[in-house]
Parts: sequence; C-alpha cells; structure tokens
Amino acid sequence: MSATPENPSPALPETPAVLIDLPVVRRNIARFQHYADAHGLKVRPHIKTHKLPAIAQMQLAAGAIGITCQKVSEAEAMVAGAPEIRDVLITYNIVGAGKLARLAALARKVDLSVVADSEAVVAGLSATFAAAPRPLAVLVECDTGARRCGVASPEEAAALARTIATAPGLVFGGLMTYPPVGAAAAVETFMTTAKALIEASGILVPVVTSGGTPSMMHAAEAPVTTEYRPGTYVYNDRSLVERGVCGWEDCALTVLATVVSVPAPDRAIVDAGSKTLTSDLLGLTGYGHVLGRPDIAIDQLSEEHGRLVSKGPISLHVGDTVRIVPNHACVVTNMVDAVYALDEGRVERWPVPARGCIT
Amino acid sequence: MSATPENPSPALPETPAVLIDLPVVRRNIARFQHYADAHGLKVRPHIKTHKLPAIAQMQLAAGAIGITCQKVSEAEAMVAGAPEIRDVLITYNIVGAGKLARLAALARKVDLSVVADSEAVVAGLSATFAAAPRPLAVLVECDTGARRCGVASPEEAAALARTIATAPGLVFGGLMTYPPVGAAAAVETFMTTAKALIEASGILVPVVTSGGTPSMMHAAEAPVTTEYRPGTYVYNDRSLVERGVCGWEDCALTVLATVVSVPAPDRAIVDAGSKTLTSDLLGLTGYGHVLGRPDIAIDQLSEEHGRLVSKGPISLHVGDTVRIVPNHACVVTNMVDAVYALDEGRVERWPVPARGCIT
Repeated sequence: MSATPENPSPALPETPAVLIDLPVVRRNIARFQHYADAHGLKVRPHIKTHKLPAIAQMQLAAGAIGITCQKVSEAEAMVAGAPEIRDVLITYNIVGAGKLARLAALARKVDLSVVADSEAVVAGLSATFAAAPRPLAVLVECDTGARRCGVASPEEAAALARTIATAPGLVFGGLMTYPPVGAAAAVETFMTTAKALIEASGILVPVVTSGGTPSMMHAAEAPVTTEYRPGTYVYNDRSLVERGVCGWEDCALTVLATVVSVPAPDRAIVDAGSKTLTSDLLGLTGYGHVLGRPDIAIDQLSEEHGRLVSKGPISLHVGDTVRIVPNHACVVTNMVDAVYALDEGRVERWPVPARGCIT
Repeated sequence: MSATPENPSPALPETPAVLIDLPVVRRNIARFQHYADAHGLKVRPHIKTHKLPAIAQMQLAAGAIGITCQKVSEAEAMVAGAPEIRDVLITYNIVGAGKLARLAALARKVDLSVVADSEAVVAGLSATFAAAPRPLAVLVECDTGARRCGVASPEEAAALARTIATAPGLVFGGLMTYPPVGAAAAVETFMTTAKALIEASGILVPVVTSGGTPSMMHAAEAPVTTEYRPGTYVYNDRSLVERGVCGWEDCALTVLATVVSVPAPDRAIVDAGSKTLTSDLLGLTGYGHVLGRPDIAIDQLSEEHGRLVSKGPISLHVGDTVRIVPNHACVVTNMVDAVYALDEGRVERWPVPARGCIT
C-alpha cells in the first residue's frame, strides 16, 4: 500500500506521531545537490532539521561533504550514530570548560571545525587546542544582516582571521554566515571584501560558507560562496510553502493527529498541541496546515490540544485522523523521542538520537 | 551556599540548563494548599508543569488528594515513578484502541478517572471497561468559555451524564472544566445548573473540578467547585508575574544560560533558544525575563540562540551566565531530559520521566 494523506500506512503508530515520507526526503536531497553540483557549490547540510544519523547518511551518499551542527552534543550524537560522518562544522561559539573539553574529544574522532566571532571565543579555543595532536579549524562568523551573532564588518572579520591564524592550536578555516532571506548581494559584498583583506595579509580563505533553505536556489548569486548549509530543505514545512519555495507535496514531515472532540459544527480538537507542533509561527498565522483541508485553520494550541476551525462545516468526527504540515519542521523533530519513517508502505520507528541536544 | 540569582550554586551544570529552586517550590505548594484547606477545596495538581514524580510526592505530602495528567503516557510515567500516587484524573478524551488498552491497564494499578465530552468517547470507554474488574469513573468535560473541548450547555452535560451512568463498565464521576481566566461566575452558573439537572435524574454529582493557576486564589468564588487542579503554581513563570499573580521571587524555574556573543554594545546572544525557552508567548512580548536586568528584552529566539537587547549598554561579556524566567514554565520542562534541583546549596540532576509523553 502506498503512502497517501488519507491512509499513510497500514500500520500507524499511536497519535500524535511525526511521520517522515522517505521518498520525498530523497527527492528533496537530490534537488539541492543537483543545483549545488551544477554551480560548483559544496553541500554541508545542517542536521538540526532531522537529527537522524540515517538521514545524514543519505545526504552524504548523495554528495554532501560533511554535516553542520549547532551544539557539541548534537555533533557527538550524530558522529556516534553514523561512521560515514567524518567532517563536522559546528556553527556556534563554543564557550566554557566542559564544552571545550568535549570539543577536543570530538576533534580526535572527525575533521572538526567551529566558528568564532570574538577574541574571547578564540582565546578559549586556543587554550584548549594548543596541546592537541592537530589544530582546530576556526571560521569567522560574519553578520550579513541577521543581527544575531557575527562580526559586523569585513575589517573586523579580517582582524579576527589574523588572530586565529596566529593563535596556538588553531588554523583559520574561512568565513561563515547565516544570512537573512534574499541577502545574496549582501553576502557577496561582505565576503568578497573580507576575503580580499584577509588574503592581503597572506592568509588563505579556504571556505566561504552560507546557509538557509529559503534562499538556497539562489545560492549561486553570491559566487564568493564555496559551500552551502541548508537544513529545512530535507523535510520542508508550511513556512516554505507559504513563501513559495516548495509545494505541499514536497513536505516530507507531517504530524499524524486524531480528532478527540467535535464540540461545535465548525470546530474540532486534535491530540497534537504545542508539545508536538510547537508554538513557532515564523511570521505565519496559525499553527500548521491540515493536508487536503485548505478551509481549516489551526488557530490555537494548548500543550496537548490543537484547535481546528473552519468557516464552513468542519466535517470531522471523533476518531478521524488528519495529517498536519507544521509551520517549522526542525523544532518538531526536537519534540519526539522517535519519528516514523514511511517507505513503500512500510512504517519503521526511528529514534531521534540528536533530539534535545542543547549543550 | 544559598541559591541566589548571581550564584545559584557552587556546582552548576553545562548551559543551557533548567534550574528548580526547591525552597520556592515548597512555598508555592504550601500557599495554595493553605488557601484550599481554608475554603474546603480539594487539591489535585496538574503534573504537566513539573513532570516529576518527586514533586508530585511533595504535593501529595502537603495535602493533595491525587494528581491530574493530560495523556495516558504521562500518567503511566508518573505512577511508575511514585508509589504514593494512587489517584489519577486524566482530563482528556481518550480515543483509540491502543490508548484505551493502556488506560485499562493503568486502572488496575490506581484509582483512575477520565473525562468525556461526547457519546463517541463514552462508547469507546464503555466498550473497553465493560469487562474490567471495576468500573471507570468518567466526568463530563464542560466548556465554561474556553472554547476548546467540552459540552456547550448544562443540558448537554446532563444528557451525557445520564449516558455515562447507564453505560456498562462506567460510573459517572462528576463535572470537569478548564475555564478561561477570571471566569468563576461562569463556572458557578454552568456547574450549578448542570448539577441540578443531573441530580434531578437521580444521579449524584460527587465531584465538580476546575483549574488554572491564574485564577486559583479566586477558586472559592465558584462555591459549587469541590476540587481544583492548579499546574503552573508549583513553579510560576513570567506570564504569571506579568498578570500580577506572583513576583519574580516566586518563580522556582529558571533557565541558566551563557553569553556566547556580544556583537554590539546593546546586544548579547545567549545559548538558550527556542529549544529551551520555547516560542510560547502567552500574549506577552519577548521570550523571558533576565533576572536582575529589567532593562533587557529577549526579543528574538532561534533554536539555539536567544537575543538579548537593551536600550542602554548590555554590559555583558562572553562567558557570563544569566538566569531567565521563561514565559511559560510547563513547556520548558518538556524540552529537557533533566532539570537541576537546587536546595541549600546542593545541586542534583533530576531526570524528567514524564517529558515528551504525548500519547
């Protein structure tokens, strides 16, 4: 039996459950890898979306050069789960003795690189790796408009690159940014200027890495970029459909939920609330899309209740199941101990090893 | 060493970490138990806030008659963790063969009751318990204004009570509601009318149970109520402080976070993002309160980044730690495998057994 929205599988788990449609995953991976190959870009997927060694293996098999993680504990879980993972970039300032010690242990297992955006972060990394068997690659995080982390100017990037290049135990690994959507021009300007300044100091810039699924099919519009780190592209979600980046048929992750109450003709309650769908809005109204029911809005979540409302009759009954595309796929996989992988009518329970890895 | 915002303990975990200040927990439990005792109300705390058998034990020791859970799996985890838990109300429509079978197994271990708001839910419960060694108590969930689950009128409540009372395997357990904030008058009107209608059918109404921390100190204003189910009161949170229900000193749960970047004079980034604080707003602006820093707003979260901004100088440095009171305590305990309990200068790691229990 094939997986359809009406009957995703003959052996479904108890609800709410996170379902992953593997044929769609494969198609999503192949689509961006093809684009990247055509434009000479290396692909380093961010595993925050799936948190699954098995899907990282699929990404590597398709041509990815390594993976991206956000926290040391995520990287530990991924490396422990897949021997194919030999190259990891942690796009985070690693601060604190405990995390630095774990970083050093991880660097003995895989090719590891991290980022820094201040002298303080570089000093901690250098103190840890000065006596390590091999140096740690450190990229400078650059703020190309997101106003999160990152040095604010190409001049600051160049200064920090020089600090890294001369710091014991470290090598300069390149430039990293997580730009706002549609900021290819800003990335190109910032990175080209920073690269020239750094090279003028006699330091090579081996990598310029950017990321973000919404802009990924425009990555080549910043030709200074050598590497791209898409995350959500592997599953897609409502935020990407609403932005016009993909269609509902490209959404590999859905939440299977059961109707537990129909207290009014225009209202139904499902057993998936914020503990499954999360409260992430990403600028949208409502908390997800019920597949096949564009008339329905999920207008309110409690922890264990999702409220479905329709302008017409809700036409659902207690015990019915629905499949919901969440606003934001990445955060949903963090809510569950396991997802259910659908492939050719089979359902497999897959634990999520990198769930909850916040340190 | 005593726990203070500046130095919560001499042996802190890696960040981000969820800290629980046990002396504050004890004070919060005692405060409401005292109010309830003074007004002849029974207390049945909702464990969704802490998800910890050890804290349920503290609530029972203080005088609670049992616990409230939202899902069968939550109840299973709590009962497995504390032999003192002998009376459990699950305030949820239990639907589906798998969950009903687990409900029946649980009913053999503890005094169990559930709710229903439709004939369909009652039919499923009755089919499951018709052959059980003892009947299941089923309360009617009533909608007193929240427009989530619940029958819409006292007449419907009475009709469903009669259905339950005559259904094989079930006994009518009373009336349950989760009202909006400040709805004591609506609760009183609905429940008094429903109770009279049901008693006119010759059926006793042994329990009228209401809940919600924001209104708990007004529970006695609906004297028909026999039992109250506060949840968040045990920890409190920013939403309750902003509503004027408590002060910052009553907030037992804080998130310890480390500053990882200070990219601008008025901005700092901490290592707690939506994977720890969650995106729950509960009507507020911003994502938490930094203790001791009323000038700071947490204006943006990514999964692993919290952005702190100030109208003046941020005056934080890489490596500094802050303690954040989240908007909503209940959802934060669902994000972590363990919390860290602080008591008289000691820190203990407490796994959270009922975390992620969504089925």
